[in-house]
Amino acid sequence: MTLKVGVIGTGAIGQEHINRLNNKLAGAQVVAASDIDAAAARAAVAKLAPGAKVHADGRAVIADPNVDAVVVTSWGPTHEEFVLAAIAAGKPVFCEKPLATTADACLKIVNAEIAAGRHLVQVGFMRRYDSGYRALKKAIDDGAIGAPLMVHCAHRNPSVPEAYVSSMAIVDTFIHEIDVLRWLIGDDYASAQVIVPRNTRLTHSKLDDPIIVMLATKGGIRIDGEVFVNCQYGYDIRCQVVGEDGVADLPEPQSVPLRREGRFSTAILQDWKLRFIDSYDVELQDWIDATKLGKVDGPNAWDGYFAAVTADACLEAQRTGAVVPIVTTPRPVFYDKG
Amino acid sequence: MTLKVGVIGTGAIGQEHINRLNNKLAGAQVVAASDIDAAAARAAVAKLAPGAKVHADGRAVIADPNVDAVVVTSWGPTHEEFVLAAIAAGKPVFCEKPLATTADACLKIVNAEIAAGRHLVQVGFMRRYDSGYRALKKAIDDGAIGAPLMVHCAHRNPSVPEAYVSSMAIVDTFIHEIDVLRWLIGDDYASAQVIVPRNTRLTHSKLDDPIIVMLATKGGIRIDGEVFVNCQYGYDIRCQVVGEDGVADLPEPQSVPLRREGRFSTAILQDWKLRFIDSYDVELQDWIDATKLGKVDGPNAWDGYFAAVTADACLEAQRTGAVVPIVTTPRPVFYDKG
Amino acid sequence: MTLKVGVIGTGAIGQEHINRLNNKLAGAQVVAASDIDAAAARAAVAKLAPGAKVHADGRAVIADPNVDAVVVTSWGPTHEEFVLAAIAAGKPVFCEKPLATTADACLKIVNAEIAAGRHLVQVGFMRRYDSGYRALKKAIDDGAIGAPLMVHCAHRNPSVPEAYVSSMAIVDTFIHEIDVLRWLIGDDYASAQVIVPRNTRLTHSKLDDPIIVMLATKGGIRIDGEVFVNCQYGYDIRCQVVGEDGVADLPEPQSVPLRREGRFSTAILQDWKLRFIDSYDVELQDWIDATKLGKVDGPNAWDGYFAAVTADACLEAQRTGAVVPIVTTPRPVFYDKG
Amino acid sequence: MTLKVGVIGTGAIGQEHINRLNNKLAGAQVVAASDIDAAAARAAVAKLAPGAKVHADGRAVIADPNVDAVVVTSWGPTHEEFVLAAIAAGKPVFCEKPLATTADACLKIVNAEIAAGRHLVQVGFMRRYDSGYRALKKAIDDGAIGAPLMVHCAHRNPSVPEAYVSSMAIVDTFIHEIDVLRWLIGDDYASAQVIVPRNTRLTHSKLDDPIIVMLATKGGIRIDGEVFVNCQYGYDIRCQVVGEDGVADLPEPQSVPLRREGRFSTAILQDWKLRFIDSYDVELQDWIDATKLGKVDGPNAWDGYFAAVTADACLEAQRTGAVVPIVTTPRPVFYDKG
Repeated sequence: MTLKVGVIGTGAIGQEHINRLNNKLAGAQVVAASDIDAAAARAAVAKLAPGAKVHADGRAVIADPNVDAVVVTSWGPTHEEFVLAAIAAGKPVFCEKPLATTADACLKIVNAEIAAGRHLVQVGFMRRYDSGYRALKKAIDDGAIGAPLMVHCAHRNPSVPEAYVSSMAIVDTFIHEIDVLRWLIGDDYASAQVIVPRNTRLTHSKLDDPIIVMLATKGGIRIDGEVFVNCQYGYDIRCQVVGEDGVADLPEPQSVPLRREGRFSTAILQDWKLRFIDSYDVELQDWIDATKLGKVDGPNAWDGYFAAVTADACLEAQRTGAVVPIVTTPRPVFYDKG
Repeated sequence: MTLKVGVIGTGAIGQEHINRLNNKLAGAQVVAASDIDAAAARAAVAKLAPGAKVHADGRAVIADPNVDAVVVTSWGPTHEEFVLAAIAAGKPVFCEKPLATTADACLKIVNAEIAAGRHLVQVGFMRRYDSGYRALKKAIDDGAIGAPLMVHCAHRNPSVPEAYVSSMAIVDTFIHEIDVLRWLIGDDYASAQVIVPRNTRLTHSKLDDPIIVMLATKGGIRIDGEVFVNCQYGYDIRCQVVGEDGVADLPEPQSVPLRREGRFSTAILQDWKLRFIDSYDVELQDWIDATKLGKVDGPNAWDGYFAAVTADACLEAQRTGAVVPIVTTPRPVFYDKG
Repeated sequence: MTLKVGVIGTGAIGQEHINRLNNKLAGAQVVAASDIDAAAARAAVAKLAPGAKVHADGRAVIADPNVDAVVVTSWGPTHEEFVLAAIAAGKPVFCEKPLATTADACLKIVNAEIAAGRHLVQVGFMRRYDSGYRALKKAIDDGAIGAPLMVHCAHRNPSVPEAYVSSMAIVDTFIHEIDVLRWLIGDDYASAQVIVPRNTRLTHSKLDDPIIVMLATKGGIRIDGEVFVNCQYGYDIRCQVVGEDGVADLPEPQSVPLRREGRFSTAILQDWKLRFIDSYDVELQDWIDATKLGKVDGPNAWDGYFAAVTADACLEAQRTGAVVPIVTTPRPVFYDKG
Repeated sequence: MTLKVGVIGTGAIGQEHINRLNNKLAGAQVVAASDIDAAAARAAVAKLAPGAKVHADGRAVIADPNVDAVVVTSWGPTHEEFVLAAIAAGKPVFCEKPLATTADACLKIVNAEIAAGRHLVQVGFMRRYDSGYRALKKAIDDGAIGAPLMVHCAHRNPSVPEAYVSSMAIVDTFIHEIDVLRWLIGDDYASAQVIVPRNTRLTHSKLDDPIIVMLATKGGIRIDGEVFVNCQYGYDIRCQVVGEDGVADLPEPQSVPLRREGRFSTAILQDWKLRFIDSYDVELQDWIDATKLGKVDGPNAWDGYFAAVTADACLEAQRTGAVVPIVTTPRPVFYDKG
C-alpha cells in the first residue's frame, strides 16, 4: 500500500519533502500540492512529482479524496488552520515546526485531536531522528551513565542575517533543544532563566548574542544551553549529559581526520542544513510507516504545545532576567504512552 | 518508471537485498526470484515481495520478460553462469562479490560484456559506497594531502569460525581492501608480498593470523595491509593515506563518547554486518538510478577481474613468501572513463 | 646562590615540598623546619633534609637567621600568623592555600605587605603552573579565539569522605577554579549565583552534590562551573573558553589510547594528587627562581584576598539561592603589573 | 652528595646538558668541560657553569681528579676514544648517540666494560624516558593488549636540509625507533627489509623519501616503520602496538583543542627538539641518580652495540632491497638483567 500524500506549501523545505516522499523514501507518493504562489506549486510538482494535482489552497489539498495524509510546510501563521482542518477531515498530518504560533493555538489543536479521538498530528522536530541523539538516548536509557542530573549543551551558528533578533534565539534556534532535550531525558520543564553574557562584537543592536538558557525540570535536572549564533567558526551542536554514574556526549558528525600544515584537524560543518539532513529522511520514513499503521510515533501535538509554552517562558525570562515558571495544562491521558 | 528486478538466490544477503529493493529504496520493485531451495524462495517472496513470481532457477528469472534487471546473490560458483546469461539476455546485472571464482572466468565475463557492446555488469563491492571512504576519497581528490605515497590499513575481526583458513584472509577478507584501495588511490597494482608475523595464540593450525599484505602500485604507491581476524577486541577497519603534503584517515564509525568507570571511551563494533550496513542501501539505490539511465557507475566487470587477479597474486605470495607480480590483460578501451 | 628555605608544617604536603625543594628542584636547600608535632618534624627532616634544623615553632623558623625564605604548609588557621610574621621579618613567604581563613585576614596581609613596601607573599594556587592551563592561556592571549565571552567548566571527583559538606564544594574544591579562571581570562568577578540540581543518590544529607556555580565578571564574561564530587567515574577537570572567534579547551591529561574488549578508550585519573603533580614542581621552581630575583611572579596576596572574597560570595549564594555581588576594596596600585 | 660531572663537547646539545646538569636538575654539578673550540668551551662554562674548569681536551676532562663522571657530547667519531678512556679511568660515562660510529667499535666498548667488571656506560637514547613511551610500555607490560604481534610506526619530519641523504634516514632518524622499539617490546631483531615507495616530489636526488623499514624480531613480531622526512606537515612520531588481545598507541603530545575557522584541531609540533625535550631532563636526572648508586639503569653499551648492528643491516637492506639478517655476537651474561 502506498500512502498518498498532499503537501501544503512548496517553498524550500516543501520541495525537499516532496522530493523525499516521492523519489527517495519507500511507500509514499505525492498526489496533491498547493502554495500561496500557485505558479511555484506547479513548477515544484512538475519537477518533483509529475502527475500530482495542484490545488488552489491548502484546504482543497486536505479535502482531495485522493489524499490519505497531509504535510504542512507553509508559512508558520497558517499551520494552525491547516492542522485543524486535517483533524476535522480525519486525515493524518505532519506539520513542520512550529505546530502553531502561540501556545493557545497549540492547545486548541491538542483539544481538537482529543475530541477526534485519534492520534493524527506529528510535529517536525527532526532532531529526535538524528542518529547521534538516538545513540545518546539509547546510552542513557540503557543506564550507561545512571540517572541524568545535568545537561550542558550549545547551539552555535557561524552567523545570522540582520533580520535575526533576540527572540529568534529562542523560537527559531533553541526551540530544537527545547524539544529534543525533553525527549532525551524524559522529563518535563519546570522553569527557565536566561543569562546574557557580554555581546560578541559581531552582533547588532537588536540581538543579544550569545545567551545561556537555564532550564530546570520537574525532576530537578538542570540544563544550561548556550545559544551563540555568530560564533564564526561553524555550525556546532553540542550536548553533554551528566548522570549519577557517568557522562555521555552527543557524537560529532563524521569527518576525515587530516594532518596538514601543522594541524591535526577535522572539519566543522558550516551549513546547518547539512547537520540534520539525514534525520529528515528518517523522520519522514518513520512518519510514512507509522501513518500506515494508524499511529503517531514521533513528536505529537502535546509535544508541540509543550515546546510552545516553554519557548514563551524562555522569552519572558530573556526579557526580564527573572526565573520564569513553565506551566502547562495537565497532561491529558490521551497522550500517555502505551 | 519503476525498475523491475529479478533476484537469484534468496539466502541471507538475498533476502536483505529483496527487502531493500522492494521496501526501503525508491524506484525498484522485486518481480521475480529463485533459489536452489525453492521453498526458501517462496517464503522470502511471501514475506518481503508478495506478488513476485518464484521461478524454478536463475535462468528462468533472467528470461522472465517482466524482469528489467537481475541481482545475483546465489552461491559464488554459480555467479559466472548467471552473469553471462544476463549479458546474453541484454539485461543489467548486479552480482555480489566475487564476480566469478577464477580470474579466467572474470575475464570471460569482461569479454562477453565488451562483445555485447553495452555496460551491464556491476559487482557488489559495497565499501565504495561507505560515507567514510567516500569522504576520504573526496579529501584525496580535492588535494588535501597531495599525491598519495603510502597507505597503511588494517582489517580486523574479533574472531572467525574454525572453517576459516589462511586463503580466506585474502579472498573473503582482504578482497574488500583490494577493490576499495585501488578505487581510493586511482592506481593499479603491480606486485604483492605477504608477511607473516608470529601467529596469535587464538588461531588454529590452518590459519596464519595475523598477516600483513604489501602491495605496490604501478605508480609506486606502497600499501601495507594488516589482516587480523582473531583480534578479539572488535571489527575495526582502518585506513590511513600518506600523501606528499599531508595525511588523511578513514573516519571512525559514530559512537557516543562515554566517561564511566575510570575510562573515556567509545564503542567498537563487534559485528561486521553493522559496519557497512548503510553502504548497501547507497550501493543499491545508486545501482537502481544508474541502471534506469542505462549506465554502470559502480565497480564493473573489469574491477571484478582486477580484484580476482590481485587476489590470486596475494594467495601465491602468501604460499611462497615471494614478491609476486600482478599481471592482467591490457585494460580494454571499453572500460575507459568517459 | 642557593635559596635557604624554612618550612613550617611537615604534614603530607609539607613533606612533599621539603622533598621537592631539597632533592628534586634546583637552587634551593631546606635548612629549617617545624611542626606542631615536633617528632614528626624531626622524622621528616631526617629523611628528606638531613642537616636542617628543627625549630620549636613556626615563628622560630622565620626568625632563624639562616633562613632566606619561608614555606607555610601548616594548618589553614595558622597561615595568617606565619605570613604576617614573615612579612614583618622581611622574608619572602610561599603560603599554601588558603592565604588566610577569612577575607578580612587576607586583607590584613595585603595591607601588611604594602606597608612593608616589598612583594613577599605567594599563594599556593598550583593550577596556574599546569602545562595544560598554561597552553590554554597562551592560546587565548595569542588571540586564537578572540575575546572570551563564556567559560564552561567542571570539577569532578570520584567521591568524597563523609566529612565533606556543602561549603567545602566552594572553599576546598571550586576555590581552584576561582583563582585559575580569573587568571586565565584576565578579568575580575562581579557576582555569583549557585544552582542546585537534584542531588545524586550517592551523596549524604549534609552535601548538595552536584552544584553549578555561575560567575559574572566585571567585563561581562559568564562562567558556569559544575562541581560534582561524587561523580564516580574519575577525577576530571574540564574547561572550555568560548571567544568571539572560536573555542578552546583545556587539554586532557596524556593517556595511552587502547582498543580492547569492544571499546576504544583512554584512562581517566582517579586520584586528584596525580592530576597536578607536575605543576607543584613548576610552581616551586618558579618561586625559587623569582625569589632569588626579589620578585613574586605567581599568585600574590591580592589574589589570595580576591579568592577569599569570591568564595565568601559563592557560599552566600549557595545558602540563599540569590545572585550575590562580589565586592572587594579597590585594587591597590602596589599590585599593578609592571 | 653532589655528582661532579665533566662535559666533553660544548656544542648545542652539550650546552643544553651543562645547563640541565648544573641549573635544572638536582644532585649534580658541572666541574669541568672541554671542546675542540676552546673559546666556545670557555664561553659555555662562563654562562652556564661558572667555576667549572676548562680543559684542553676530553682526555684531560676524564683525568681531572675532581670529575666523578663524564658526559660525552662531542662529534660522533670521537665517542669511541672518550668512552674507552672513561672506562679505563673507571669513571661512569654518559655518551650521546651513537655510542661509536661502527658496530665493531661499539663491541670494543662492550668488551672493555666487561673487562672493567663494572657497569659504567650509558647511551643517550632519550626516547626511553619519554612519558608517552613509558606509559605505552607500562600498558604492554601490564598485559593490557596481550603478547605483541606487530608494531606499526612512523617517524615524520616536516623537511630536512639538502645534506641529508638516504643513509641518514637510518642512522640519524630511524635509529631512535631501532632502540626504543626493542626496549618497548622486549625482543631482539632478527632481520631487516627496506621498501621504497615512489619518492615525494619534495626530496632530492640523493635521498629516497619516504621509505618503510620492516623488522622481524627473534620472537616473530613484525615491525613496519615509515620514515618520511619531508612530510611537510610536522614532526610526528607514531607508534601502534598490536597484541593478541588489543591495540595500544603512543599518546599524542598535549595540545589545546581549538574550534576556529571551520576546523576542530590540535597543533602538531614543527620542531623535533620540542617533542622529547622533557625526556632529556628525565634521562639525565635518572642517570645522575643511578650513577650515584653505582648503577646503569638506562640504555647500556650492549644496547648501543645492538643498535649499531641493526642500523648496518638496515643500510644494507636499503642498498640491496633484500631481507638482511641481523646478527650480533652472543649477548654476554654481564648484560643480563638482575
